[in-house]
Amino acid sequence: MTTVLLAGAFGKMGQRITAMIQASDDLEIVAAFSPVGGTSPDFPVFTKYADIDVQADVWMDMTTPAGAKANGEFALAHGFDTVIGTSGLTADEQQALGNLAQANGQHLLMVPNFSISAVLLMQFAAKAAAYFPDAEVLEYHHEDKLDAPSGTARATAQIIAANRKAKPRTPESDAAARGDRIDGVQVHAVRLPGFNASEEVIFGAPGEALTIRQDSFDRSSFMAGVHLAIASVNGLPDALTIGLDTLL
Amino acid sequence: MTTVLLAGAFGKMGQRITAMIQASDDLEIVAAFSPVGGTSPDFPVFTKYADIDVQADVWMDMTTPAGAKANGEFALAHGFDTVIGTSGLTADEQQALGNLAQANGQHLLMVPNFSISAVLLMQFAAKAAAYFPDAEVLEYHHEDKLDAPSGTARATAQIIAANRKAKPRTPESDAAARGDRIDGVQVHAVRLPGFNASEEVIFGAPGEALTIRQDSFDRSSFMAGVHLAIASVNGLPDALTIGLDTLL
Amino acid sequence: MTTVLLAGAFGKMGQRITAMIQASDDLEIVAAFSPVGGTSPDFPVFTKYADIDVQADVWMDMTTPAGAKANGEFALAHGFDTVIGTSGLTADEQQALGNLAQANGQHLLMVPNFSISAVLLMQFAAKAAAYFPDAEVLEYHHEDKLDAPSGTARATAQIIAANRKAKPRTPESDAAARGDRIDGVQVHAVRLPGFNASEEVIFGAPGEALTIRQDSFDRSSFMAGVHLAIASVNGLPDALTIGLDTLL
Amino acid sequence: MTTVLLAGAFGKMGQRITAMIQASDDLEIVAAFSPVGGTSPDFPVFTKYADIDVQADVWMDMTTPAGAKANGEFALAHGFDTVIGTSGLTADEQQALGNLAQANGQHLLMVPNFSISAVLLMQFAAKAAAYFPDAEVLEYHHEDKLDAPSGTARATAQIIAANRKAKPRTPESDAAARGDRIDGVQVHAVRLPGFNASEEVIFGAPGEALTIRQDSFDRSSFMAGVHLAIASVNGLPDALTIGLDTLL
Repeated sequence: MTTVLLAGAFGKMGQRITAMIQASDDLEIVAAFSPVGGTSPDFPVFTKYADIDVQADVWMDMTTPAGAKANGEFALAHGFDTVIGTSGLTADEQQALGNLAQANGQHLLMVPNFSISAVLLMQFAAKAAAYFPDAEVLEYHHEDKLDAPSGTARATAQIIAANRKAKPRTPESDAAARGDRIDGVQVHAVRLPGFNASEEVIFGAPGEALTIRQDSFDRSSFMAGVHLAIASVNGLPDALTIGLDTLL
Repeated sequence: MTTVLLAGAFGKMGQRITAMIQASDDLEIVAAFSPVGGTSPDFPVFTKYADIDVQADVWMDMTTPAGAKANGEFALAHGFDTVIGTSGLTADEQQALGNLAQANGQHLLMVPNFSISAVLLMQFAAKAAAYFPDAEVLEYHHEDKLDAPSGTARATAQIIAANRKAKPRTPESDAAARGDRIDGVQVHAVRLPGFNASEEVIFGAPGEALTIRQDSFDRSSFMAGVHLAIASVNGLPDALTIGLDTLL
Repeated sequence: MTTVLLAGAFGKMGQRITAMIQASDDLEIVAAFSPVGGTSPDFPVFTKYADIDVQADVWMDMTTPAGAKANGEFALAHGFDTVIGTSGLTADEQQALGNLAQANGQHLLMVPNFSISAVLLMQFAAKAAAYFPDAEVLEYHHEDKLDAPSGTARATAQIIAANRKAKPRTPESDAAARGDRIDGVQVHAVRLPGFNASEEVIFGAPGEALTIRQDSFDRSSFMAGVHLAIASVNGLPDALTIGLDTLL
Repeated sequence: MTTVLLAGAFGKMGQRITAMIQASDDLEIVAAFSPVGGTSPDFPVFTKYADIDVQADVWMDMTTPAGAKANGEFALAHGFDTVIGTSGLTADEQQALGNLAQANGQHLLMVPNFSISAVLLMQFAAKAAAYFPDAEVLEYHHEDKLDAPSGTARATAQIIAANRKAKPRTPESDAAARGDRIDGVQVHAVRLPGFNASEEVIFGAPGEALTIRQDSFDRSSFMAGVHLAIASVNGLPDALTIGLDTLL
């Protein structure tokens, strides 16, 4: 049984994580940390670091970037292996926390994307790119998403570029309809109500195509990845691990 | 039985059309016109207008824009209802040929795209746009296609714009990944080896999506449309008809 | 402004319909009918027919089949045009209610499926089947759906069969992998967690394919159809109308 | 430069392989074996084993199962590493040829499917099945394909079953629309003109889906796999290798 202290337990994701842990056989929530308050019949809720008198195998942090930075510094200095679920920390901030984990003999797992299907898509894209240099990335999100392309699409394009072994057959083009070009890979962003978050990679070669698509319909899709992260962080080989990639 | 004189019988499309007519129950090829020569055991081949001594219900023209213009002028003035299968004539040239058809009591059918599935896609998109103002167009073509977006994708975006009854929820964006914007409709062009010509329209609304996709895998996909055009041109209500749309 | 009395206002769908009406510019909820109780700060809630002292342009019924039958009998006899949103009434029960509407000079609209995209899919399938006799239906639902294929998929297969003009090229087969055969159309049912309700029709012909797909991601997808039904029922030409089909 | 003796050089696949080798930088065709005759300006063609007086790094065999068996026995006994491109040999025949390769210090590579995208799909499916026990396989082929499901779909279902780590959430069903059930994995076969050979695996989990799809539009899709097989067979670690899987 892995015991968990959950920071951010009363946000939208925090509530789902609480329910997921409570429904699991191998995880147990023993406390929450929430400066803005909140109560639970099942575990104590601390609002200040100084009050925390419970130890846990894992500090699971689902807060803001600022909260994650401060919480991570506290947790790693106080005996908690830590999972941080935000993509908002800079590379320098991540490294600083990693150094702290190293110095304290703890493990830190930073997870920008808990979707297992998204991580598998990127792994499969890396492998396929070695055989299919011609590839384009499409992502589909709800109409309110402000940035385009998505961070996952951008990362996927970079992964494809890094794993290509041959020059693509498709010539470059400046036509607006050809979308964005990231490391030499065309990326297209669709924005439509009804969609939540989907990503697709299409590889083409003479006479054939290979398509990998991942759909996240709602937040429940992240729970399997959160479970995996919490269950794995104690046994990680390194002090700092970024992403679920090495766990899959 | 509808009799056909086929101009351009020995090009790639012409050979397929010949085979299609010969395999059909209701069409018969009675002559070919081909200034560059060619022979057939089954029908006479004329290389000059002056030599043509065969009449047919339909002059089917599958040549170049220049050839189609000259051939159309001859055919419409010599008693042939005419099908022209090129998208390369200007609006003025089309109208001039239409006027000639009117003056001679003939029917002229100009067909820029013989794909029945592409025409149906545009019809369906027109209807769906009335209920789903949020829509994006994606087209997928082989890596050698020079223009982007395709003419069909451009036409589809215009049709969607013309049939919208409400303002889309999705805000406009200048991000390169959002593709081209035609009449307020985002259009994305994918270029990959393996693909021939495919087009897709995705409509989104709260909690739902409607997708219409059309794939042309090879030239055989045009034969049903050529058949329909030849079989229909004699009975058209107007002297000039553009596109298969009104026939479906 | 169309005024509405909503029966079943406190169920999952009823709550969404209430919110949709309150957010709309052209509909107004003036009362609810709910034998199991419930209250609202915005409108009176009646628990017995005898208490209803409010008239409305439309009685919108989102209850059980038994409730819909009884409520429809009351509403049509008391001056309400009525929309019934259940697929559970028998053909005889539907006809009996239609006769009651006729006798009382009211309009009755029975709607088995409020998804506009699903209705459009069926319309498009009907048209495409005339040109593409080869077609297969695929539906994708959550793992808990008990029946297979779905009613919509079954109806779509019947529509395709009714609109075919030529014999399909694809030979019949008894192989289990070929799925169910409804009126000569193969139907495939996929059941997977993550999916809610999606339906797809694929038409194939030499060298081409036409695909129409509809996804309902959640209940919000039905609100546009509910809105359309309420806004349209007063102006319907017939006493009994079944389905949104004739409204689109 | 890898030298090749091509058996079956004048069949449909053989002609494509000849062209592929002649266009490549690293392969060279030095002879053909064809009991039914055929000539080439570029290399000698042998019609009898006894006449073969050319050695090559690889005997590439693209013939019938019977031809492949006899040719393989000759080639492996006469100093040729051998690639056999047929799926028609029994497991016993494959093993017997493998034993012959072992005894003669040669390498034998048997390739039932030269499509790299199909092999990658199966590899990706194996990995994804460990995280997503709920999966269904769909395959799409031309209307003339007699068997259903395809061998590739069947193999993919078996791979998924072998790599699952948890019980699927989706209950079993006997409904015809649910398709075939292979090792506990539902498999659906679509047959439509226009399609050549496509395969799709859909994984579902709460709130998400992962889809992997492979399309073979025509025979040109196999050339990259043939190239890989010829270029790799000399360096294989084992006397007998089955499938491209271990090469990717």
